[in-house]
Amino acid sequence: MRVIVAGGDGYLGWPQAMYLSRRGYDVCVVDNFCRRTWDLECGTDSLVPIWPLQERVAAWRERTGKTIDMAIDDLADYGFISALVCDFHPEAIVHYGEQRSAPFSMIDRRHAVLTQVNNVVGNLNLVYAIKENNPDIHLVKLGTMGEYGTPNIDIEEGFIEITHNGRTDTLPYPKQPGSFYHLSKVHDSHNIQFVCKIWGLRATDLNQGVVYGVETDETKLDERLATRFDYDGIWGTVLNRFCIEAAIGHPLTVHGKGGQTRGYLNIRDTMRCIELALENPAEPGEYRVFNQFTEQFVVSELAQLIKEAAVHKGMKVDIRSIADPRVEAETHYYNAKHTKLIDLGLKPHMLSETLIDSIFDTVQQHKHRVKLDRIASLVNWRNASNQVGYGSVSAKADEDRKPLKAVAGTRGASRRR
Amino acid sequence: MRVIVAGGDGYLGWPQAMYLSRRGYDVCVVDNFCRRTWDLECGTDSLVPIWPLQERVAAWRERTGKTIDMAIDDLADYGFISALVCDFHPEAIVHYGEQRSAPFSMIDRRHAVLTQVNNVVGNLNLVYAIKENNPDIHLVKLGTMGEYGTPNIDIEEGFIEITHNGRTDTLPYPKQPGSFYHLSKVHDSHNIQFVCKIWGLRATDLNQGVVYGVETDETKLDERLATRFDYDGIWGTVLNRFCIEAAIGHPLTVHGKGGQTRGYLNIRDTMRCIELALENPAEPGEYRVFNQFTEQFVVSELAQLIKEAAVHKGMKVDIRSIADPRVEAETHYYNAKHTKLIDLGLKPHMLSETLIDSIFDTVQQHKHRVKLDRIASLVNWRNASNQVGYGSVSAKADEDRKPLKAVAGTRGASRRR
Repeated sequence: MRVIVAGGDGYLGWPQAMYLSRRGYDVCVVDNFCRRTWDLECGTDSLVPIWPLQERVAAWRERTGKTIDMAIDDLADYGFISALVCDFHPEAIVHYGEQRSAPFSMIDRRHAVLTQVNNVVGNLNLVYAIKENNPDIHLVKLGTMGEYGTPNIDIEEGFIEITHNGRTDTLPYPKQPGSFYHLSKVHDSHNIQFVCKIWGLRATDLNQGVVYGVETDETKLDERLATRFDYDGIWGTVLNRFCIEAAIGHPLTVHGKGGQTRGYLNIRDTMRCIELALENPAEPGEYRVFNQFTEQFVVSELAQLIKEAAVHKGMKVDIRSIADPRVEAETHYYNAKHTKLIDLGLKPHMLSETLIDSIFDTVQQHKHRVKLDRIASLVNWRNASNQVGYGSVSAKADEDRKPLKAVAGTRGASRRR
Repeated sequence: MRVIVAGGDGYLGWPQAMYLSRRGYDVCVVDNFCRRTWDLECGTDSLVPIWPLQERVAAWRERTGKTIDMAIDDLADYGFISALVCDFHPEAIVHYGEQRSAPFSMIDRRHAVLTQVNNVVGNLNLVYAIKENNPDIHLVKLGTMGEYGTPNIDIEEGFIEITHNGRTDTLPYPKQPGSFYHLSKVHDSHNIQFVCKIWGLRATDLNQGVVYGVETDETKLDERLATRFDYDGIWGTVLNRFCIEAAIGHPLTVHGKGGQTRGYLNIRDTMRCIELALENPAEPGEYRVFNQFTEQFVVSELAQLIKEAAVHKGMKVDIRSIADPRVEAETHYYNAKHTKLIDLGLKPHMLSETLIDSIFDTVQQHKHRVKLDRIASLVNWRNASNQVGYGSVSAKADEDRKPLKAVAGTRGASRRR
């Protein structure tokens, strides 16, 4: 099967490309390196060194004899993506190619707009490229469990049957996303559902939980094939961040009461979930949603788990509660269904001490690379600008705020105060 | 009360500005004239001649002694809108300033992207300008009943209580929008709800039905104060379009079975609904939704009503069914709640033969201006491009579609076929 992996230079996109290539798929990765650029802006970096994409692809060929194609460009450029779809003639497109950090989207207005425009326009361009070139292409889109928020009822997989005033319908599950990033994924979901309806496109929307882990069978083949491992306050997700905090003797930082419950999955299961979606495509006109995670954890429990594993390895670990920088329920009901991928054959890798140990080993090997001042979650949801320490954000915000004089000329003579 | 009316040169924005000005509000209208520009692109025009904004404002002062301020610029420019909010210090912002045509958003990819970026970014800029300058400003945002689609259960006002597996929560009403335009309004709604939650902003989201009518007490004062009256396949809405078809002897064109049911309201009620929202602002942190319409009609019934009124005036009228250019249910259940504005004091102007007669009179007066070739609904939801007859759309689509050669240089040496 011929597959385009958009965002194929990223944390999940790159191992996904190798995973599929190894299993006989013809893979073309698309990337514009915005993620590496945003590291430059935020002063962040992968704990594990990552190689340039060209060297990754060359190392992959050297190790396996297999070829991964590359197309370096931006999904915002329709001419590019439409030509690529026409030329590569994929049977499926796996779409990892979006800005994927909630804190990044909350830095200020510029980052909120960047996130929503980048994600919504890239996704619209993809569905138009599919419609115009080959409507039979299966779109496998990465969404997030964060689209649902934390409702006080069970979370279903995309749709819910509602009985109201004596009548019944099955409707899209109501969304309560918690950041401008999560909102962008909700916008995408609505757009994709619509094009499946009007054009008969086929799409699988994967509402993924928090991914942990850094190794797959393919990344282990060669250090040049490693994928990125983020631990900072902008890009790092909670389990990976806890492992690094433990390894460097930093307290495990829990936001507020630590009662936030989320779905989690091992990076290896992400790889397999995409494969299952590709092997069992949506029908023409079908928009289906899978909740892609394997276990639910409460954050404070997760901190305890990591602490125990760390103590077992002889480390000293504290858990510290900090004021929650996000606006979210710190304790809440949470029960999300996730049976559709299991039904297709997913055999989950559950979180275990072995896995945590292997992450510790990776961290130990690279801990001299940790930038201590990047660990904290400095972006506060309650602020709208001047989020300290990220690029030229403050200067930029001031610049945006033109003095009124600059626009006065365009205002009516009738202007008075 | 000081109020900014964004989109204040438009069909509803302009009469709204006058309505509020007459009642003692200090009004500043914001517009970038994109709507007049899109008329140039689409070869469309208002049936009723409309004056330049500067002349409208001057005529308003001449007739009433009252001043309406103007700020001519784009909501996409944050520097502009933030400075204006800072300088004008409004207590409320009425946001009509969006691309508001479903067919326009469905012409091709460029128009879909334009619609979503224009609407989402303009709206994000407004909420940031409020947050940064004065979070107490009340945002009164125009949405659409089309956000809901046509579910098989009653439509509530924004939220629905759902009991599921023995638990209950009140959640955002599930949305099933029917065009890229309607989708943009759903995106806005999600974004606004979020900023009310995280920043404590106050917002009223008005899901408006189809507006009909062309006269208000203010537009009647002087021909220079007239508002636009659209009848074409891109900008014209159904009741106004039927009146014009009747007046010029064109069959009333019903899409498909004509069983589409929608909510409708008189332009005078739109004016009053906004006033009611302003007089009774949302609380800090409150995101509330009002369904803003007064009557439901089935399209085929509406055609019959217009036909009868026309026959009564001695006209000959046929009703003709054409293939539905949209992808929508042609017959369906529809029962949408609309009590919140009534509870605040709205006294609806129901559709009557008198009103239809007055529209006929307006049409008679200007019917020499009708462009016959613009009446048909030429934009088909099932197509993705090359929608005949709208600007340089086809040429532009070809241009977008760069030959692959242009990007080949950026692709890996490992490329093969």
